Amino acid sequence: MFRLLLLLSMLLLAGCAAPELRGTGDLGVVIERASGQLTLVDTSRRAAYARVAGLGDLSHASLVYSRDGRYAYVFGRDGGLTKVDLLEQRIVKRVLQSGNAIGGSISQDGRIVVAQNYTPGGIKAFDAETLELLSEVPAEYAPGSFSRVVGLADLSGQRFAYALFDGGEIWVSDFSDPRHPRTQRYPAGLQPYDGLVTPDGRYYLAGLFGEDGVALLDTWQPERGTRRILENYGRGQEKLPVFKMPHLRGWSMAQGRAYLPAIGRHEVLIVAGDSWQEVGRIQVKGQPVFVIARPDGRQVWVNYAFPDNGWVEVVDTLTGQVVKTLAPGKAVLHMEFTPRGEQVWISARDDNRVLIYDTASFEKIGEFSVQAPSGIFFTSRANRTGF
Amino acid sequence: MFRLLLLLSMLLLAGCAAPELRGTGDLGVVIERASGQLTLVDTSRRAAYARVAGLGDLSHASLVYSRDGRYAYVFGRDGGLTKVDLLEQRIVKRVLQSGNAIGGSISQDGRIVVAQNYTPGGIKAFDAETLELLSEVPAEYAPGSFSRVVGLADLSGQRFAYALFDGGEIWVSDFSDPRHPRTQRYPAGLQPYDGLVTPDGRYYLAGLFGEDGVALLDTWQPERGTRRILENYGRGQEKLPVFKMPHLRGWSMAQGRAYLPAIGRHEVLIVAGDSWQEVGRIQVKGQPVFVIARPDGRQVWVNYAFPDNGWVEVVDTLTGQVVKTLAPGKAVLHMEFTPRGEQVWISARDDNRVLIYDTASFEKIGEFSVQAPSGIFFTSRANRTGF
Repeated sequence: MFRLLLLLSMLLLAGCAAPELRGTGDLGVVIERASGQLTLVDTSRRAAYARVAGLGDLSHASLVYSRDGRYAYVFGRDGGLTKVDLLEQRIVKRVLQSGNAIGGSISQDGRIVVAQNYTPGGIKAFDAETLELLSEVPAEYAPGSFSRVVGLADLSGQRFAYALFDGGEIWVSDFSDPRHPRTQRYPAGLQPYDGLVTPDGRYYLAGLFGEDGVALLDTWQPERGTRRILENYGRGQEKLPVFKMPHLRGWSMAQGRAYLPAIGRHEVLIVAGDSWQEVGRIQVKGQPVFVIARPDGRQVWVNYAFPDNGWVEVVDTLTGQVVKTLAPGKAVLHMEFTPRGEQVWISARDDNRVLIYDTASFEKIGEFSVQAPSGIFFTSRANRTGF
Repeated sequence: MFRLLLLLSMLLLAGCAAPELRGTGDLGVVIERASGQLTLVDTSRRAAYARVAGLGDLSHASLVYSRDGRYAYVFGRDGGLTKVDLLEQRIVKRVLQSGNAIGGSISQDGRIVVAQNYTPGGIKAFDAETLELLSEVPAEYAPGSFSRVVGLADLSGQRFAYALFDGGEIWVSDFSDPRHPRTQRYPAGLQPYDGLVTPDGRYYLAGLFGEDGVALLDTWQPERGTRRILENYGRGQEKLPVFKMPHLRGWSMAQGRAYLPAIGRHEVLIVAGDSWQEVGRIQVKGQPVFVIARPDGRQVWVNYAFPDNGWVEVVDTLTGQVVKTLAPGKAVLHMEFTPRGEQVWISARDDNRVLIYDTASFEKIGEFSVQAPSGIFFTSRANRTGF
C-alpha cells in the first residue's frame, strides 16, 4: 500500500508536470515536409520546444488555428485532417477526409473547419471540436463534372470563398446553417489556379492560369458579380516557362497597395488597392514565389523558384527599392513574420534549418535544426481573416 | 507515513488541477472601475471565468499584454503598475511607479513596459519580466518645467511616441539600449490632449485642446518633422462645451479612411488616410467618445458622452449611413471587438453589466454581471501596434 501510494504520488507529479502552463500567443508550427512531423516553436525563446509525429503526407501541407490558439488543424496532401494540441504536444484527432487535398480554412467564429479537395473535388466542413463531418459541397460545375478546388479563404459570417480550377468559377458557400450550406456561383475565367481574400476580408481574387488576368469579387457586394482586373497579369502571349507557380496567398497589402509575384518574370508587381490598376514593377533576382509584407507594410520580403531559391530579397515600400539581399540557406520555401514584425522566420529545406532574422538590422538572431522544413505558421493567424 | 503520502497525493492533485491548461488567444480582461478588481473573460464561452482583486485605483485604467498573451500589465490612475497572470488568475507583481499615471504601452519585442505619468511628468520603462525600473525620461520641456504626458504609443524598433500636454511637443524615445534611452523632440501645438499611432505604426497624431487642429509626425521619416492637419478639428471659435474629451485611441482606419470623433459636435468626421483631408461628416446622436472600426472596417461603432451615453450607433462604411441604433444599457463606457469581428463586447457601467452583440445580426448573444465595468481588453491586442 505504501509503495502504491508513493508510485501514485510520482505518477501524479509526472502527469501534472508534463504540459507546461503557458500562453499560446507566441507559439507556432513548422511543417517537416518529408517526415510527416511537426516542429512546435516558441517565438519568445526563438527555439523549438517539441515534435509531433504521425501526420501522414505533409508535402504542400498547411494549417489553421483554433480561436484560442491552442489547437492546429493540419491539412495534409493525402487528405488527412489532423487536430494537434500545442500545449499537450500531441495529436488529439485525425481523420482521412479525402484522397487528395490542398489546404483548408476556419470560420470566423472558429466553430467550423473546412478542407478543400482535389479528389473528389469539393469542400467539406467539420466540427472544429470533434472533427465530425457536418456537410460537403461537391464542386460539380456541370452534370457529372467535378472540379479541383483551390484558393479556399474564410469570409465574414461563416462564409468561404474558393475557386474551381476545372470549372472556371468562384463559389461562395455560406455555412450559417452548418449542415445545409448555401452556395452562390460566379464566373472566373480559364483555370483559376489559386485565390486569396484581402486582409480586410472584402475582396476575393482568383489568379488565372489558362489566360492572363485575375478575377475579382467584392464580397461586400457579391450581387455585382465578378470583374476582370490586371489583364496583363499572367504568362503572357509568349507563354514563359514557369518553374513554380507563385502563391497568391502571399500577395501583400501595404500602404494601400498590393505587391504580387509576376508569373514567369523576375518582377514584383505593384497594384493600387482601390482601382486595382498596376502602378509599378520592381526587378528582382528570380521568379517570385512568396511576396509577403512585414505586418507594418514598410517592407516586402520575396523568395524565389529554382534556381534562385537560395535568395531572399527585401523591398522598402517607401522607396520601392530592393534594400537587402540575403542568402539564408538552400531551398528557401517559406517566411513568417511575428505578429508585430520584429522577427521573420525562414525555412531552408535543403539545409534542414530554420533561420530567424531581425527585420530592422537584417541580422540573424537565431536558428535551429528541422528536417526539411517547409511552411511556418504562428498562432497569431488565428486572429486574422484569410489565413 | 501512509496518511502523509495520501495527503501528499491529494495536495499534488489539487495543486496541479487548479490552473486549467488552455490557450490564451480568446481571453480578455474587464476593468472594474470602482472596486480595484479585474474580471477575466473568455470570448469562446462568452463568460467571465475569474476575478482578481487588489489593483488599487482603476478609474481610467488601461492595460497591455505580454507577447504570449498570458500576462496583463495594468496601469492604474494611482501610478500602480500591476502584472496579472490570466492563467493562474493572480497578481504576479505590483509596483507603485508614480503618484498619478494615465496608461502605458509595451515594446515591439515585448521586453519593455512603459508607463506615462502626470506626476511627476514623464515616462518610465520597466523590464516586462520583473517590473524592475530600467530608465526614465522626465518630461522637462524647459528648465525646471515638467509636463504631463499623454498619448503614449509603441512604434517599431523599441521606440515610443508621446505628447507633452503642458510642453506642447511630441517626443519619440528609443529604448534600443533600455537603460540609456535617446529622445527626439518635435513641436506639436497648444495642449496636445491625446495621441495615437495608425494601425501600421507609421503616423503619430496628437489632437490639440488649446487650439484647433492635429499635429502629425511620419515616424518612417521623422526628419521631416511634424505638420498640422485638420485645421477645423477642435472646439472651434465658439468654444463649444465638451462633456467628455473623446479618446483618440478610438480613431479607426477603415478602407483607407480614418473615422474620428468630433469635439463638442454630434458628428463623426471622415478623413482620407493618404492626404489627411476631411472628406465627410456623419450626423450622430451625441458627442462621440469612442469611434471604433470592426476589424474588417465594414462597420464603425460609436458611443457618446453624457447625456447620450446610453446609446451606441453603428455606421456602415460602404454607405456612410447609420444602420443601427442600440440601447445596450446605462453609461456605456467602452466597446471591444473579438479579433475577427464577429462579436463586440460593451460595458454598461451603471447597469453593472457587460453585453455581447453579434455584429452581423445586431442581436444580443450574451451578457453577465460585472461591478461598474469600464475598459474591455482582449489578448489579441498583444499582436497589434499602438494598443
